[in-house]
Amino acid sequence: MSSQESLALRKEVLLAAIAQGKIAEANHTLAKLHPSDVADVLESLSDADRLVVLRALPAELASETLAEMEEDEHAADLLAAMTPHRGAKLLSELADDDATDLVADLQPEERARILAEMSVEDAGEIRELLAYPEESAGGIMTAAVVSVPETLTAGQAIEEVRRQGREVEDFYTVWVVDGGGRLVGTVPLDDLILAEPEDPVSTLVEPVAAAVSPDEDQEEVGRLMARYNLPTVPVVDPGGRLLGRITFDDVLDVMEAEQTEDILRFGGVPNDESLGASWVAAVRTRLPWLVLNLLTATAAALVVYFYADTVESAVILAVVMPVIAGMGGNAGSQALAVTVRRLALRDDVGADPRAVVGKEVLVGLVNGAVLGGLVAGASLLVPGGDPRLGLVVLISMWGTMLMAGFGGAFIPMLLHRLGFDPAVASSVFLHTTTDLLGFMLLLGLATALLM
Amino acid sequence: MSSQESLALRKEVLLAAIAQGKIAEANHTLAKLHPSDVADVLESLSDADRLVVLRALPAELASETLAEMEEDEHAADLLAAMTPHRGAKLLSELADDDATDLVADLQPEERARILAEMSVEDAGEIRELLAYPEESAGGIMTAAVVSVPETLTAGQAIEEVRRQGREVEDFYTVWVVDGGGRLVGTVPLDDLILAEPEDPVSTLVEPVAAAVSPDEDQEEVGRLMARYNLPTVPVVDPGGRLLGRITFDDVLDVMEAEQTEDILRFGGVPNDESLGASWVAAVRTRLPWLVLNLLTATAAALVVYFYADTVESAVILAVVMPVIAGMGGNAGSQALAVTVRRLALRDDVGADPRAVVGKEVLVGLVNGAVLGGLVAGASLLVPGGDPRLGLVVLISMWGTMLMAGFGGAFIPMLLHRLGFDPAVASSVFLHTTTDLLGFMLLLGLATALLM
Repeated sequence: MSSQESLALRKEVLLAAIAQGKIAEANHTLAKLHPSDVADVLESLSDADRLVVLRALPAELASETLAEMEEDEHAADLLAAMTPHRGAKLLSELADDDATDLVADLQPEERARILAEMSVEDAGEIRELLAYPEESAGGIMTAAVVSVPETLTAGQAIEEVRRQGREVEDFYTVWVVDGGGRLVGTVPLDDLILAEPEDPVSTLVEPVAAAVSPDEDQEEVGRLMARYNLPTVPVVDPGGRLLGRITFDDVLDVMEAEQTEDILRFGGVPNDESLGASWVAAVRTRLPWLVLNLLTATAAALVVYFYADTVESAVILAVVMPVIAGMGGNAGSQALAVTVRRLALRDDVGADPRAVVGKEVLVGLVNGAVLGGLVAGASLLVPGGDPRLGLVVLISMWGTMLMAGFGGAFIPMLLHRLGFDPAVASSVFLHTTTDLLGFMLLLGLATALLM
Repeated sequence: MSSQESLALRKEVLLAAIAQGKIAEANHTLAKLHPSDVADVLESLSDADRLVVLRALPAELASETLAEMEEDEHAADLLAAMTPHRGAKLLSELADDDATDLVADLQPEERARILAEMSVEDAGEIRELLAYPEESAGGIMTAAVVSVPETLTAGQAIEEVRRQGREVEDFYTVWVVDGGGRLVGTVPLDDLILAEPEDPVSTLVEPVAAAVSPDEDQEEVGRLMARYNLPTVPVVDPGGRLLGRITFDDVLDVMEAEQTEDILRFGGVPNDESLGASWVAAVRTRLPWLVLNLLTATAAALVVYFYADTVESAVILAVVMPVIAGMGGNAGSQALAVTVRRLALRDDVGADPRAVVGKEVLVGLVNGAVLGGLVAGASLLVPGGDPRLGLVVLISMWGTMLMAGFGGAFIPMLLHRLGFDPAVASSVFLHTTTDLLGFMLLLGLATALLM
């Protein structure tokens, strides 16, 4: 896309200017960019340059840029490096949810210093939002809403929206509340404009398709918005009082981040490794996981060790071993991917777990019969091939594939039921099980039938 | 969440009523639900019941329900089973993009029959949208926009918005165009309401942060909306004329579907297997992929076969083999997950591919040294352990982990450059490479040093 290309070009020009110390010139260009693009440029700079450039930006752009930075630690470092006064000024420019996200990444003493410089009202709002867990609805909501009492007319409501709207950015939806602040419904802004001024708001109220409590998981909020096509979801307390709202753009960010997390976990990167992490950070997140996998791989190795005599006298078994282990792993990954995703989307899994497992077992049975047949056939072609060996290979491949289907569905569902994240933990258990069973079947049967 | 639970309960009551043939009673309850929830209930019914229930629903709800169904084929089957007249009526109730999605899944002759029953205008709109590829910006956009000439005042613009808004659902953004229909910018609806009526629109125009061409990939549209926090993105032709818009809810659906696709591909389910697919369909998508993997596994097996004499005289090698292959696979998956995700997000990969590969090689070197040391140490503890064996194990594990890091970064980047989807094809190549290299190093070095 040409606008993306020109952005890349502009970024290079900017980086060159900053490298030559032409900060004023660079900031002149930066001031014309969207804060997300400015954040992108800052991410490419050294820690020192980043601070110099940010310092020279006007407060509004500087604050939005901080809010849009991908690496939360970079933003926190910048905020901590400013005077508390400047930090407080930048935070007060931001929407309460963005300000809270930035403050959340600060050390407690830095946080206290900056909050002390803010107005009592702004600091109070941030403290309230800080109380919610970061990945909950409360953690991504903003308390800034536009709401009107149900007793107004459309004309009065528009006046009220104009008044409140000066304080609230991008409100999208006008909420309707009763005398006790309880959420009654919503009047879409477009309906309000299209209505006659004397229409009572109560005749325009639409029920909300969904409302969430502040402790709802942020991913579930995204699913509700996608399901009901909502630009904003209201957050209400147990008594039904309107606490705040979550907007589609918070949720788009959440979905992108969760998608990254899901793929990384599925690939066996268990902790939060940022995509641009240094090699040191990458070793730190990945090595413990590999060591855990090494322990489970040792279990499979011990099975082979136990049957060492059998392998020694029929070394063809050592040739077949990696094929059975590899195919078990592949088929298991397939069943696992489908089941993990069904669980994530709260598909029909809850309704009938037996049907989910049953399907994967059937798939394993069929695929195992075909692949087992192929490998058994191939093993007969080896010089000195023995029909009994073919039978052993067929049964072990079949059993392994069956186990892969069963485990690929059962293990993530069990972990999910027990409250663990099935995406990250399932694969160790699954691959250990298929390896163990595959080697035991192959070598155990071979010992019984061939020795 | 309690509202979700009551939904599940209501669904069971409904299904029971429908099973007993109480269609009128069931439809009375369905009429109070959101179309997405009605679609959910319909998905649980048999093909015959589904048609009976849909027939009894009022046209508006029936059409929205069709649009919200997860399984496109179910919706297409229902539409095809109606009279063309009723089908045309339901389609004309829908937004043009939803109507187009439904029509796209019909057989050509059914499509022609239904379009012939629609008004020339509606049918023309759908035909225009059908011309765009399904996963492009044009394929998810709606041509229904609210736009005002830049020459109006805010008051006149509000009148114009009220007039156009009656025809256009959920428009969110008011576009500003010049005399030639070219996009000049946008006036957010809230700014328009907050402005004084006599303010000229031209003073309120904000530039658009992003616009896309109709052939832009739908995933890229989602990334732009998340990056710039946009509820809608305009679609413009090469001359800058406004063709339509894409709204956040289309993009949420796209992101959810792409996330499913990515996880499934990463797990080795290459084609579009729907999560609720039957076991027959699952076998059909997965078996060809497993057979391909079997061929590559055979390559690794041939290496073992080639060194059969070595394995026979030092059977401990057969014990170490699965550990080396397994760890290579695990480390490779980690590098692959990170790189695939960097490519998907168009992270800094393009800027410096060598740095990306270099990092993964370093990670492989460090992790390989640690894990190789552990396994080499353990192999010395085996009765009759040989220091030369320890050295062979150390070097092979190290080499395999290095290869896993290199391949895990290089292979997806190469495939991406060549225009293939790196998520699905990388793992076969990667695991074949690590298995081959691991076995060659282990058995080749053992042959040279131990025999």
